[in-house]
Amino acid sequence: MELISSHRCFNGEQRRYRLESNQLNSTTTVGVFLPPDALGNDAKAVPALIWLSGLTCTDENAAQKAGAQRRAAQLGLAVITPDTSPRGESVPTDPEGQWDFGHGAGFYLDAVQEPWSVHYRMHSYVVAELMPQLCTELPLDPSRLGLSGHSMGGHGALVLGLRHPQRFRSVSAVAPISHPSHCPWGQKAFGYLLGKTPEAQQQWRQWDAVALLEDGCHRENSLLVDIGSDDPFLEEQLRPEDLRIACKNNHQRLSLNFHGGYDHSYFFVASVIDRHLEYHAKALGLMA
Amino acid sequence: MELISSHRCFNGEQRRYRLESNQLNSTTTVGVFLPPDALGNDAKAVPALIWLSGLTCTDENAAQKAGAQRRAAQLGLAVITPDTSPRGESVPTDPEGQWDFGHGAGFYLDAVQEPWSVHYRMHSYVVAELMPQLCTELPLDPSRLGLSGHSMGGHGALVLGLRHPQRFRSVSAVAPISHPSHCPWGQKAFGYLLGKTPEAQQQWRQWDAVALLEDGCHRENSLLVDIGSDDPFLEEQLRPEDLRIACKNNHQRLSLNFHGGYDHSYFFVASVIDRHLEYHAKALGLMA
Repeated sequence: MELISSHRCFNGEQRRYRLESNQLNSTTTVGVFLPPDALGNDAKAVPALIWLSGLTCTDENAAQKAGAQRRAAQLGLAVITPDTSPRGESVPTDPEGQWDFGHGAGFYLDAVQEPWSVHYRMHSYVVAELMPQLCTELPLDPSRLGLSGHSMGGHGALVLGLRHPQRFRSVSAVAPISHPSHCPWGQKAFGYLLGKTPEAQQQWRQWDAVALLEDGCHRENSLLVDIGSDDPFLEEQLRPEDLRIACKNNHQRLSLNFHGGYDHSYFFVASVIDRHLEYHAKALGLMA
Repeated sequence: MELISSHRCFNGEQRRYRLESNQLNSTTTVGVFLPPDALGNDAKAVPALIWLSGLTCTDENAAQKAGAQRRAAQLGLAVITPDTSPRGESVPTDPEGQWDFGHGAGFYLDAVQEPWSVHYRMHSYVVAELMPQLCTELPLDPSRLGLSGHSMGGHGALVLGLRHPQRFRSVSAVAPISHPSHCPWGQKAFGYLLGKTPEAQQQWRQWDAVALLEDGCHRENSLLVDIGSDDPFLEEQLRPEDLRIACKNNHQRLSLNFHGGYDHSYFFVASVIDRHLEYHAKALGLMA
């Protein structure tokens, strides 16, 4: 782990690290906000929220724009913001030259198609490699993890949370891509990373929140999902109604909230971040 | 006024406008956060804080990174974030090709040297043109204005606040360039914009907070100034000790606060923005 930068922020520290990732077969960057409780001579291991960002983001967008540090500092919660894809000259990116796949758009799954499978393993990186690496140097409690994210990162939070209910104690999402097998962003990425044959498309279900719910994945506690009613991607890309129906049919508790007038931007994320932090803080034993 | 974008944020709206500025002899952009009180059918004219940003910033940096909207929405305070210089292909920029003068670095004064004097009139734009333009369309109360800023914008806030004590009811600054005539950033910009001859340098005093205080400018209420103790620009560029002495000698009340471990970044701005908003809200009659 190489410390790239550290800024005092709300009496905690907003840091940026470079990691060597075996899963991604490359170096990657990650943001870590440490609350005051995790600093100083009497530092203690604190719970953490892993925040997965959306299309085109790096590890820095949420750290700079979500405004999570103020409430996280008060709650004693670390906030970990991984990059959204593998990167580097050796990492293939979108053959179509667009921004919705490739660098900045890894979709939080483990690719099986060449050439993507060499690097595009964001699922295994986030679930199995990130916390062990961070915990070698930082006072984080890997047994108390929450998971959240925005847009493509909301998809990641729902999928990883449903696949690993024991690893993440709480799961929430802001404006998530809920049913990627049935929206253009998801279909494009899954087609490249997982393949397009009918057999390959059966594997898509493992990386789709609605399909996972249909196939019986379940979490004990409620999923918290916030969406802006004026989100321009609402119906075509996010498909919250599909999520609502899948949760209902699988008896999965879901708190799905539409917020009047809000769009898909970080101005919406910032407007609801405190309630997500508090949701996770409760599940992680930081507040009653 | 052309509305470029509008995002709901903390039940208010973060907007961006393009204005035609006579003072700047060009178009310019400005951010406006309207609190909930200023929206809807029963909107009322709200007080505003003008926030002047620092070197390299546009109108967007503070809107995206300072995290002011949450508290401003609660207080009923608008936040107006002008760009930091004139811009455009016809606007001359730094002959030295650096980032500390020219586009993104107008230093909030009225230039007298050619070719700068044609466009570089940020002082007159902020003091005399910005609010009348905004008030033609937005429910803002131009009689209740606060002024603040960061770094070069902190210099702007102090200078404009000292020159126009009746126009701005309250003045604060985060990590301001306090004594530009005596620091490299200020000397470079003033040399271009105002001239370098001994006679020209006498005019520098009109645009230097410390010199204005030495020459008798005074405000009734206290100046609030916050600075990070680990700011890498502290001694060479910011020179808060000069400000402290000038205020003391001129019986100008000053609340000068050093914050342990903080640097010059927006992570520091975000960490202290609420106390600045509250300082202005009190002066503007929004809280006791």
